[in-house]
Amino acid sequence: MQKKANGKIRIIPLGGLNEIGKNLTVIEYENDLIVVDCGLGFPDDDMLGVDLVIPDMSYLEKNESRIRGVFLTHGHEDHIGAIPYMLRTINPPIYGTKLTLGIIKNKLEEFKLPNEPRLNCVEAGDVIRVGEISVEFIHVNHSIADACCLAIGTPIGTVIHTGDFKLDLTPIDGEIMNITRLGELGKKGVLALLCESTNAERAGSTPSEKEVGKSLEYIFSTNKDKRIVIATFSSNVHRVQQIIDISASHGRKVAVTGRSMLNIVSAAVELGYMTVPEGVLIDISEIRRFKPEELTLITTGSQGEPMSALYRMAFSDHDKVKLDSNDLVVLSSSAIPGNEKLVGRIINELTKKGVSVLHDAVVAVHVSGHACREELKLMQALTKPKYFMPIHGEFRHLNANREIALTMGMNPNHIFISEIGKVLEIDKKGARWAGTVPAGNVLVDGLGVGDVGNIVLRDRRHLSQDGLIVVVASIDAEDRLLLSGPDIVSRGFVYVRESEELMDEIRNLAMEAIIDCLDNNEIYDRMQLKTRVKDELSKYLYMKTKRKPMVLPVIMNV
Amino acid sequence: MQKKANGKIRIIPLGGLNEIGKNLTVIEYENDLIVVDCGLGFPDDDMLGVDLVIPDMSYLEKNESRIRGVFLTHGHEDHIGAIPYMLRTINPPIYGTKLTLGIIKNKLEEFKLPNEPRLNCVEAGDVIRVGEISVEFIHVNHSIADACCLAIGTPIGTVIHTGDFKLDLTPIDGEIMNITRLGELGKKGVLALLCESTNAERAGSTPSEKEVGKSLEYIFSTNKDKRIVIATFSSNVHRVQQIIDISASHGRKVAVTGRSMLNIVSAAVELGYMTVPEGVLIDISEIRRFKPEELTLITTGSQGEPMSALYRMAFSDHDKVKLDSNDLVVLSSSAIPGNEKLVGRIINELTKKGVSVLHDAVVAVHVSGHACREELKLMQALTKPKYFMPIHGEFRHLNANREIALTMGMNPNHIFISEIGKVLEIDKKGARWAGTVPAGNVLVDGLGVGDVGNIVLRDRRHLSQDGLIVVVASIDAEDRLLLSGPDIVSRGFVYVRESEELMDEIRNLAMEAIIDCLDNNEIYDRMQLKTRVKDELSKYLYMKTKRKPMVLPVIMNV
Repeated sequence: MQKKANGKIRIIPLGGLNEIGKNLTVIEYENDLIVVDCGLGFPDDDMLGVDLVIPDMSYLEKNESRIRGVFLTHGHEDHIGAIPYMLRTINPPIYGTKLTLGIIKNKLEEFKLPNEPRLNCVEAGDVIRVGEISVEFIHVNHSIADACCLAIGTPIGTVIHTGDFKLDLTPIDGEIMNITRLGELGKKGVLALLCESTNAERAGSTPSEKEVGKSLEYIFSTNKDKRIVIATFSSNVHRVQQIIDISASHGRKVAVTGRSMLNIVSAAVELGYMTVPEGVLIDISEIRRFKPEELTLITTGSQGEPMSALYRMAFSDHDKVKLDSNDLVVLSSSAIPGNEKLVGRIINELTKKGVSVLHDAVVAVHVSGHACREELKLMQALTKPKYFMPIHGEFRHLNANREIALTMGMNPNHIFISEIGKVLEIDKKGARWAGTVPAGNVLVDGLGVGDVGNIVLRDRRHLSQDGLIVVVASIDAEDRLLLSGPDIVSRGFVYVRESEELMDEIRNLAMEAIIDCLDNNEIYDRMQLKTRVKDELSKYLYMKTKRKPMVLPVIMNV
Repeated sequence: MQKKANGKIRIIPLGGLNEIGKNLTVIEYENDLIVVDCGLGFPDDDMLGVDLVIPDMSYLEKNESRIRGVFLTHGHEDHIGAIPYMLRTINPPIYGTKLTLGIIKNKLEEFKLPNEPRLNCVEAGDVIRVGEISVEFIHVNHSIADACCLAIGTPIGTVIHTGDFKLDLTPIDGEIMNITRLGELGKKGVLALLCESTNAERAGSTPSEKEVGKSLEYIFSTNKDKRIVIATFSSNVHRVQQIIDISASHGRKVAVTGRSMLNIVSAAVELGYMTVPEGVLIDISEIRRFKPEELTLITTGSQGEPMSALYRMAFSDHDKVKLDSNDLVVLSSSAIPGNEKLVGRIINELTKKGVSVLHDAVVAVHVSGHACREELKLMQALTKPKYFMPIHGEFRHLNANREIALTMGMNPNHIFISEIGKVLEIDKKGARWAGTVPAGNVLVDGLGVGDVGNIVLRDRRHLSQDGLIVVVASIDAEDRLLLSGPDIVSRGFVYVRESEELMDEIRNLAMEAIIDCLDNNEIYDRMQLKTRVKDELSKYLYMKTKRKPMVLPVIMNV
């Protein structure tokens, strides 16, 4: 093996750069290709009507025969959510820890797949050998249990992919990030570190999950007369565990509501990631049998998601839970950027009901799952990589992580801020950019995957701003007669009953334009007629209203 | 006067409650009516295509003869922005301080008004008597100069309306909020306090504007080799003054860019609210004559507004300013809720250019203009009101302000959280709710004021999510023949070239539906035919795509 160790490593992020989510990194050594994570992203504000965003996987499809496996760092949507879409076209073996695979199995039940997925369960410490590549799973702390970073061994050196991580010295499950193993790898020599950047702008260290427990304990102690409703991320198994434990110690029963919360709690209990004291968990339908102060409810909706359980409670639309001034709602979460207004709306509605609300701006009921600057420094100090690539973040985060590397004394020429589809090639001689592969966003809207593109989105944006005017006319192109119409139909433009005059004006304008075109001696050209109607109406409407509705002429030749 | 002092005060907020902005409060004593502020609001995310939101003013129009004046607390858009719209239908006298009126005059130049506005300039300390009401302007600190709160005297007692305020003990212009006068009024007895609630959830006190100066001084001292570009709110005259002063002391020239920044700076200099050392201010076109380190640029765009000067700089679209690694951009502002993503996008773009970026999460380059909890307590302690009404804020803020009043020992029955249009009546016997008057949002879209309502917005939302399908057919209703079509036009639904099959299917479906209707012996009913086509296509499209485009059938009888 040592003799032929002069091959090339290629590192190709297909997502997770200059964006939040949609994490997918391809790592190749010569003919062997592995995939690290396969996540989804959420649409930007301007992707109207789009449900999800997944990575363009055409590179994987084209190189299917070389794919040795998909290695998953943990079970968050932005790391595993695109797997069902990947499995529609290719079916590589998938490796992940027990909880990660448990979540995937649950997810895959909603999809019809052409083949049986090839799921392989691993645990931290396992090394998987595929072709000339070995992949070692190394335990890290994160806001979901069973998270790992990956040490990817190749004949020319080791690449470490951190996944998402933080260092929690007092973790709920007792397992601290395996800093020793990372240090051993660093001692042997790490060729490249691919390191997450989410909190690279934040100074210091991320507090331990146990800190949340302290705040919750205080809240429970000082609200003994109230029912306590706690909203959090369903995948935060350790948070939920703490809520259950504290509830039990205060003699409260716990009921769970919200689909994803129910799914994850049952999966976590079944797989042994959560232990619930006998008799503590009750069904939401049983809460009537208890006094408010004997109950804790754990719910989804911490991001203010419309139709989530907490949203329905706030808007009096939950069939089992009615909230009032006997309730305390705790948002054990922080608003993901873009969700601030949704969360605010829920807080307002709850407050109107007389419900007391606590959230992370008031009391420390949430901690991040991502490494802050000191932890990022520690990761670099342990692994001492030759090359460094910040991953997972918007450009500002990647750049902040780069600056951390510079303060650690790293050679600036050894730091590579990549882009999706951009290839970094590493061999014994050095590291360099080596072209690009196809990469991008694929938009999922309803059942459609990739059928919503720029033109469709542009039209949706146009329609959303000023609505539309449809102009319909029947003509006899041969005899050059206007047979019927033009009829004007408008939607989303103005309230028609109050704008009859304007509608009459544009009907007349359209009629004049059509008749003028038909009277003209030139050869009849439907496109030309439509363009004329569209231009004249658009100009007139803008002058009268300073709006630009979409004008859609439909001319029928009868 | 004392004899007849048994009238009623009516307090009617027409905006500024359960929302941010759009502040307008009506205060009446018997037949005399005054208006406090007349502001605009910005549209919620679901008000697609809407430019501005103004208060429904039908109550003012109906009571025009009783309006004695519009009294303005300060010159921010959310307190004065709806004045041009008010002046389209009524023309009451308007009272405000010099800077406030200066900003209004500038604004009114863009509007054609039926009558000459009746602007009356006042200064802090002035008392205006209108009918049985007197209005005293009392100096407060805020993020704009020349801000006042109002003491509104009536025969049965004084109502204090705080406007927006903070207590700044080291203000830039040397004028501390007139706490003595407020205390005097409190000593005499204040009947009701209407108090702003923006920061009622925030503990402590808002830092002085001078603190920003300290941070800026540090930034200038440690970035002597860079051009410094500072984005801030154009109306923050004192912030701009500090930037100019610090620049001058570091030997830098200052250029201003962005339309509203230019307007306000020239108005403030002209009116004496800003003093610029000789030769410091240069035109933006002159910056080429200076080295980067000799320049400070002050710009709009601190909220990431598309097409603002900073946005254009970030996206290489500013004709005078090209940014690179010789530039430091300071966002001397905080993101207004909902703008976080826009601001983030600018930070990313600037970082990609190699520009250093500082913002309020990193260094204290911004302070709020609103009172935090300790200042709100002070206002209550000074004025010792009998009745208390929190104003200006979402419900959560109003409620937090209510809780402050409770901690100050106020009788809970004397605290009134109102709603827009809700009337609070106060007389010698007490205070009570007394019905409602018409109130609400009027949406401004282009030149249209109020012509975009719920139906139009519902259609825009529908169109924005899944686009539309137009089905057009010409028929001969008498002979029951389909003459032409159906033609299918789709926009914002799917990319048509890749979905020809689906388009064919729905064309056939529409044709069958039309022919079936025409063949049917019943009397021809166009509505029925359209409903049938719409329902069948909608159902089919949802089954095939899980999307719900708007289906718009147009049937022409030729």
